[in-house]
Amino acid sequence: MQKSLSVYDSDGSTFAPLVVIELVSETKEEAIAWLLNRVRDKQQDGGAELLVEQLTPGAQGTEKDNPNVYVVGASWQRLLYGAEDVGLFKEFNDGSMRGFTYANKHNFKEFQGDGDGFLSMAECQYIIKHELDNLRAKDEAHVPGYPKMKLYPGKSVIRRMQSKGILVQVFPLHEKEELKRLSFSWFKKIKLSFQPLDDIRHYFGEGMALYFGFLEYFTLALIPMALIGIPYYLFDWEDYDKFTVFAGFNLVWCTVILELWKRLSASLAYGWGTLSRKKAFEEPRPGFHGVLGVNPVTGRAEPLYSNAKRQLRIYLVSVPFVLLCLYLSLYVMMIYFDMEGWALMIHDEEPTFWTGLLLFIPSIIYAVVIEIMNLIYRYAAEFLTGWENHRLESTFQNHLVLKVLVFNFFNCFASLFYIAFVMQDMVLLRQSLATLLITSQILNQIMEAFLPYWLQRRRNKKAHKRMIKTMEDKELPLSEQVKLEADMSTYLGTFDDYLELFLLFGYVSLFSCVYPLAAVLVVLNNVTEVYSDAFKMCKVFKRPFSEPAANIGVWQLAFEAMSVIAVVTNCALIGMSPKVKSYFPESETQLILWVVGFEHFLLASKFILTFVIPDVPKHIQIKLSRLEFESLEALKKRVKHFGKDKLQNLG
Amino acid sequence: MQKSLSVYDSDGSTFAPLVVIELVSETKEEAIAWLLNRVRDKQQDGGAELLVEQLTPGAQGTEKDNPNVYVVGASWQRLLYGAEDVGLFKEFNDGSMRGFTYANKHNFKEFQGDGDGFLSMAECQYIIKHELDNLRAKDEAHVPGYPKMKLYPGKSVIRRMQSKGILVQVFPLHEKEELKRLSFSWFKKIKLSFQPLDDIRHYFGEGMALYFGFLEYFTLALIPMALIGIPYYLFDWEDYDKFTVFAGFNLVWCTVILELWKRLSASLAYGWGTLSRKKAFEEPRPGFHGVLGVNPVTGRAEPLYSNAKRQLRIYLVSVPFVLLCLYLSLYVMMIYFDMEGWALMIHDEEPTFWTGLLLFIPSIIYAVVIEIMNLIYRYAAEFLTGWENHRLESTFQNHLVLKVLVFNFFNCFASLFYIAFVMQDMVLLRQSLATLLITSQILNQIMEAFLPYWLQRRRNKKAHKRMIKTMEDKELPLSEQVKLEADMSTYLGTFDDYLELFLLFGYVSLFSCVYPLAAVLVVLNNVTEVYSDAFKMCKVFKRPFSEPAANIGVWQLAFEAMSVIAVVTNCALIGMSPKVKSYFPESETQLILWVVGFEHFLLASKFILTFVIPDVPKHIQIKLSRLEFESLEALKKRVKHFGKDKLQNLG
Repeated sequence: MQKSLSVYDSDGSTFAPLVVIELVSETKEEAIAWLLNRVRDKQQDGGAELLVEQLTPGAQGTEKDNPNVYVVGASWQRLLYGAEDVGLFKEFNDGSMRGFTYANKHNFKEFQGDGDGFLSMAECQYIIKHELDNLRAKDEAHVPGYPKMKLYPGKSVIRRMQSKGILVQVFPLHEKEELKRLSFSWFKKIKLSFQPLDDIRHYFGEGMALYFGFLEYFTLALIPMALIGIPYYLFDWEDYDKFTVFAGFNLVWCTVILELWKRLSASLAYGWGTLSRKKAFEEPRPGFHGVLGVNPVTGRAEPLYSNAKRQLRIYLVSVPFVLLCLYLSLYVMMIYFDMEGWALMIHDEEPTFWTGLLLFIPSIIYAVVIEIMNLIYRYAAEFLTGWENHRLESTFQNHLVLKVLVFNFFNCFASLFYIAFVMQDMVLLRQSLATLLITSQILNQIMEAFLPYWLQRRRNKKAHKRMIKTMEDKELPLSEQVKLEADMSTYLGTFDDYLELFLLFGYVSLFSCVYPLAAVLVVLNNVTEVYSDAFKMCKVFKRPFSEPAANIGVWQLAFEAMSVIAVVTNCALIGMSPKVKSYFPESETQLILWVVGFEHFLLASKFILTFVIPDVPKHIQIKLSRLEFESLEALKKRVKHFGKDKLQNLG
Repeated sequence: MQKSLSVYDSDGSTFAPLVVIELVSETKEEAIAWLLNRVRDKQQDGGAELLVEQLTPGAQGTEKDNPNVYVVGASWQRLLYGAEDVGLFKEFNDGSMRGFTYANKHNFKEFQGDGDGFLSMAECQYIIKHELDNLRAKDEAHVPGYPKMKLYPGKSVIRRMQSKGILVQVFPLHEKEELKRLSFSWFKKIKLSFQPLDDIRHYFGEGMALYFGFLEYFTLALIPMALIGIPYYLFDWEDYDKFTVFAGFNLVWCTVILELWKRLSASLAYGWGTLSRKKAFEEPRPGFHGVLGVNPVTGRAEPLYSNAKRQLRIYLVSVPFVLLCLYLSLYVMMIYFDMEGWALMIHDEEPTFWTGLLLFIPSIIYAVVIEIMNLIYRYAAEFLTGWENHRLESTFQNHLVLKVLVFNFFNCFASLFYIAFVMQDMVLLRQSLATLLITSQILNQIMEAFLPYWLQRRRNKKAHKRMIKTMEDKELPLSEQVKLEADMSTYLGTFDDYLELFLLFGYVSLFSCVYPLAAVLVVLNNVTEVYSDAFKMCKVFKRPFSEPAANIGVWQLAFEAMSVIAVVTNCALIGMSPKVKSYFPESETQLILWVVGFEHFLLASKFILTFVIPDVPKHIQIKLSRLEFESLEALKKRVKHFGKDKLQNLG
């Protein structure tokens, strides 16, 4: 925990600031006073029982600075109760992971003294976010001073103020020291070692650590494919019959690595205590609106929105829109092929070095256009999915992922499918694949890390002028640190990072038998990706709230779907190879039947393999069942105890 | 509850007999005394706290009768505690299903007075079985009087005595009155109405009720297929191009009915309280043996058997054995085709009425041989799976089901696949399908219901002589009832019944486009099956212990796998149809590519459909999440309550 910074709370004692709340500068006094009181109130009075203080502007404070910035913290005891509230799992004395309870606190391994240092700062911040989100309106009809900002009993106060725009942002503070240590071990020294996943988890939470774990695992898993691919490139094995061996290896490999990842991620999540952690009941997402009614599950007042209406919006608007976009993407693809033909024509008429270069231009333009279309579509998809008005953040995310995945898959791979199976031009396929892959990698790295960093730098330069001296000091005053961090970009989650990996996986697996070098390129990309992602997390973005996660969720499914499609495409490519064709000189029918049979066999094996390999390693399974067994036994004992003594059960 | 029968327990008070324990007649006195004491002992002393008495032989008792027959019962209070122990779900006052707790008993809907009648007799018997199975050795090193019958602390006494053969059987008693009522509403009156599933569940338990529910659902679901199939037969649409429409309908239908069944079974299981019931910790199955060690999950002493050894047994013995059997089955199939050719030759040489009949002989012989091979293989598979020494009954069952399914599928359908895709003889396919289907149906009905009934009758005739008078009386003395029931065959579970349905489903779906009448035959078969199965459950077999079940388990998977295979076969059959062929006059390749594309499209739609249709109906989902939400809230409240008061947590 960051000890260097502290603020005085209203009692005069100090507390460590954890989370920053920023309200718009013109917020009415009464609303602020009411909010602060609610945050400070005792829990039995419906408050959050947290510590909160206005940030005192530093020496360099100007009038332009927003005065309504507040830092939130909590006492250690409050945080420990909060840890129990959110269902945090911690390591027990016997080495197993158990749900933390305040009463049992001394039986947890790392609990010493009064519990200072037991929770990581990321955990504390997560707890505070949870408590703030769960601060609910009592009998207020509206936010004081804002008669139009309606409230009803049970409505989350923070979410309402956020959706109405008087709460600008809530974000957790970075820890300078910790961050410096993490950056150093993570990306500042060039080394051949694994990423410090436990430290990443400690600082950024499980969701982020799983992303980096997956990125690393994926890269390592591609190395055998890359190693096998290199001789194909070096010895110029252009007759792509040899590639069929490579494709066969690829298919098996894809299935195996995805299955093994499940086991690895289960191990990681167990060690981090998220594997068996129960999901809390999900609140409606901030943007959700509807007529006030009673939630049939909780019995609480809550906006309700008819499912039939949502279905209508999905099937009558979203689906046609997606189809239209797919059609547009096809249209752009056909333009690309026209351009390609035109460039080829010019080159054939009068071949020079420049016309030779011209041959690559259409592919590069197309790759750029694809990226732009993906970007525009992304905004449209977000708008549409928001408009569909899903109640839960998780269903919103699922619908968004589905929309974006389908379009991106289509947009990135349609031309390759067309070249492979309609034009059947393997040379063009290889060339397009290489151009698309390399261009999109370069674009991605620029868009993702260097552009935000450059913007950040430009913005900071202005701030710089104000405090050239203090920047050099290690001990930046709290108010300056908060101001600096408040200006940083907000990290929008791992969605785009996973999406990029997903598309790379497609480039590697779908047409692996025509371009074995793809794996090498992807490995190289991923190595730089680790560094650029690590850099952007530590230097470019605000610290994100940690998100507990037990697995990579819907992305596991997406990768598995891709590996099924890869079986189909690779079998088709193998069937089209001249060497395989030469085995069936008389009859093409025989050839196709054999290839189809082989493909069905592979698909069946894939499903059987998925079934046979257990998703959770044996030793973790044993630990999980031991925990379950113990809780069953404890329940039985309590039941007997209470039952026999005829006491009223507490439950 | 059966009130008419009662026995006096040692205190002189009466109790209703629920379960019968039969020991071999020469069991040593001290072993019996010890067992009875352990059953009667208080729970805090490690006993089962049940009531148990020796059965006093009736007036007709002869010396030949086994004297070591005991009836077991329990007080109402004991049974209610037991209901909490086994985690029974009952209807709460607010209409939801909740885990029964003794302390909360008055809040359950049907709880009146002292709880007499709250539990059904089947539930009471299940509870008693559970308590008997959980009667564990304390510090006895062996069963008294039997130094070789080793015990260790925590070993289930009943299971040890059963596996060593001094405990002959444990079975629940029938309720004459209840059974008469059930039989009447179930199968004694010919009527057009649904089966009384709730009554079946009440008497036989959830596992059995789900089987009958599935049988009925499956029959109803086949009716549309049968209705569409009839005109094909009547108008003799022999040109099987028309059948492609039928096959298309079939494919969609199969997927939809299996998905809908999941929803229906979830509704049924919710109403019966098994849907959200937690599985108790599974004990090792009776036949399991190994070196005594410590179970890593429970920490209890228990035999352990190395997983590596088991894997070796599976892959080095069981898998080769299964493959050998499959080869044998293929060999028999080839003999059948030789016979078929021979019969055809004779018929062609000199066609008479008799040689016409002769044409059917090979098919009938083959069908009979298939049934016999299935039967023999079944025993071999059971032996092998037992020898693999699985720790849990559930994994034992899964391995057995897998072995039996693969062989039966192969055995029953290999010849049809051969005729369809190697010989491509659609007339022969239709004829073989019809013969196989009809013969196996007839054989099954005989083997399953009438043979056991006839054996039963023959056995009973001997007993009859002893008590011609009493048989007519409604009030058969307890001792006679017990003796009669002890002699009845034991029902071995729903395995064979599901297997039969599975094979019928295969006959209907795999080659539906060549023989639409199959659905009609299967519907007819299923209607009689309902009656014969109901009859055998009520009249032929001992009452089985009820088994809580939330779904049909591995069979759902088996049926789904069959429907995937059906997509492949039907697409292939459609591709072979002359009409479809005529669409692609020039190129067979084009035809095959289209068929393969269509098949992939169907398979993809199937998986998407499986994903899109929720497995649990919305209204049940809401009820389940409400329960979960309430338990989370209750936990939170308790946590706060204990936490704030700094009390030591009970958990």
